[in-house]
Amino acid sequence: MCTHTVTRRSLLFGASAGAVALAAPTPAMASAGRSGLQDLTHPVTTAFPAFEPGEEPVRRTATSIEADGYYMQEWRILEHFGTHVDAPAHFTAGGRTSEELSLAELITPLVIVDISARAAREPDTTVSVADLVAYERRYDRIPRDAAVVMFSGWARKSGDVRAYRGSDAAGGLHFPGFSAAACEWLLDKRRIRSLGVDTLSIDPGVSETFDTHLILTGADRYGVENIANLDRVPRRGATLTVGLIPYQDGSGGQARVFATW
Amino acid sequence: MCTHTVTRRSLLFGASAGAVALAAPTPAMASAGRSGLQDLTHPVTTAFPAFEPGEEPVRRTATSIEADGYYMQEWRILEHFGTHVDAPAHFTAGGRTSEELSLAELITPLVIVDISARAAREPDTTVSVADLVAYERRYDRIPRDAAVVMFSGWARKSGDVRAYRGSDAAGGLHFPGFSAAACEWLLDKRRIRSLGVDTLSIDPGVSETFDTHLILTGADRYGVENIANLDRVPRRGATLTVGLIPYQDGSGGQARVFATW
Repeated sequence: MCTHTVTRRSLLFGASAGAVALAAPTPAMASAGRSGLQDLTHPVTTAFPAFEPGEEPVRRTATSIEADGYYMQEWRILEHFGTHVDAPAHFTAGGRTSEELSLAELITPLVIVDISARAAREPDTTVSVADLVAYERRYDRIPRDAAVVMFSGWARKSGDVRAYRGSDAAGGLHFPGFSAAACEWLLDKRRIRSLGVDTLSIDPGVSETFDTHLILTGADRYGVENIANLDRVPRRGATLTVGLIPYQDGSGGQARVFATW
Repeated sequence: MCTHTVTRRSLLFGASAGAVALAAPTPAMASAGRSGLQDLTHPVTTAFPAFEPGEEPVRRTATSIEADGYYMQEWRILEHFGTHVDAPAHFTAGGRTSEELSLAELITPLVIVDISARAAREPDTTVSVADLVAYERRYDRIPRDAAVVMFSGWARKSGDVRAYRGSDAAGGLHFPGFSAAACEWLLDKRRIRSLGVDTLSIDPGVSETFDTHLILTGADRYGVENIANLDRVPRRGATLTVGLIPYQDGSGGQARVFATW
């Protein structure tokens, strides 16, 4: 199906690495290809951008080594802050909650769709069906039960709340997400397990109807938001592990997310 | 080194399974031996036993589908509730915090030391150096950078706060843990990465000096407490993944913990 002539490196790491013209993989690269491990989790800090201003977590020092012999913090935190999961129950009444998602469905093939070049010019862009078709033409068919993850390049903005939220003067948000049509196509045609993004939401920031959330959770599938470091992971062939905290009746929750390959 | 005649099943799953006398592994068992996945995480609920009464988390419904279009909870939670990590900073001033533990050191060989028969009779018992020597005689040498985990059988009591804490009339706690000598031996002789337990603390409940915590965190190593389902994991040869939430300045934190083999 793939008619392009590509190097192993461009095949794994995508367009931006394609400029590095290597005729054949080096032994070191081949080795890295068999034993990669990449953390994709932003640290949970009070400075990380929240979806709504004011939704940042609050922490307090509960005990200290000086006063108590041991150190411990307490957090007040929403289930949807930082690198986290949207469980089906987040947008779908009667949907499954965090502790009902099995570990087996949290460890899946990882597909990374790179729209970073376009997103740099058009922050309101979305992953389209055409992007998915182009992905398959270049790499491989999206496997069943995959996590399909958007790489928009947004993670590097996470230290700047206004830039990451794409705030405009009227309070609007501007960052990329998945189109509803792409979500439906992936569910119907490829029977994926989850969608993931390196932004605050699987819907684009401008969305007021959250169609992608509604379609995805309505299909008993989950989302992963605020993923980090996607530029360091092969575009195909890796496995995504979503170490979701199984909160009671959880609408989602914090997760340690990483890739292996 | 091992002079015992053992079946594959008893080798993997320990003494309690040894009674099942199988001359050779079946194909199904051999297959399971290559592709096991077991969640070891207790759900985070307000009913799970806390180390101190009153330390249970508090949750509130922040938004609902009916009122807001989407459902979300907020949690107020200590870093040491439920299945969680003790980072070096928990007991050692200047020790590393949660976000400083790398993913590579959170994925390690898993060694399970079964003291469940003795613990059922003696809740104040500890994992001793003799237990570790006996483990190595039966199974294999404990590998470098391993997670050495106590299986005491306590997880099945977690639905009963008094039983899990081993509360006595004077407010004392009675559950098993690691002896300080065993911790020192593992650090010095086997250069382990972490200790884990299926109880509230890596020190036994009766400890008032927390020697094992002090020795382990003083060696820049971490602990994992309140591990579930250890009876379903091979005693040797599995890999432990500790999906720790990387809390800012964290003394530890909630983790999705699982075994693969």
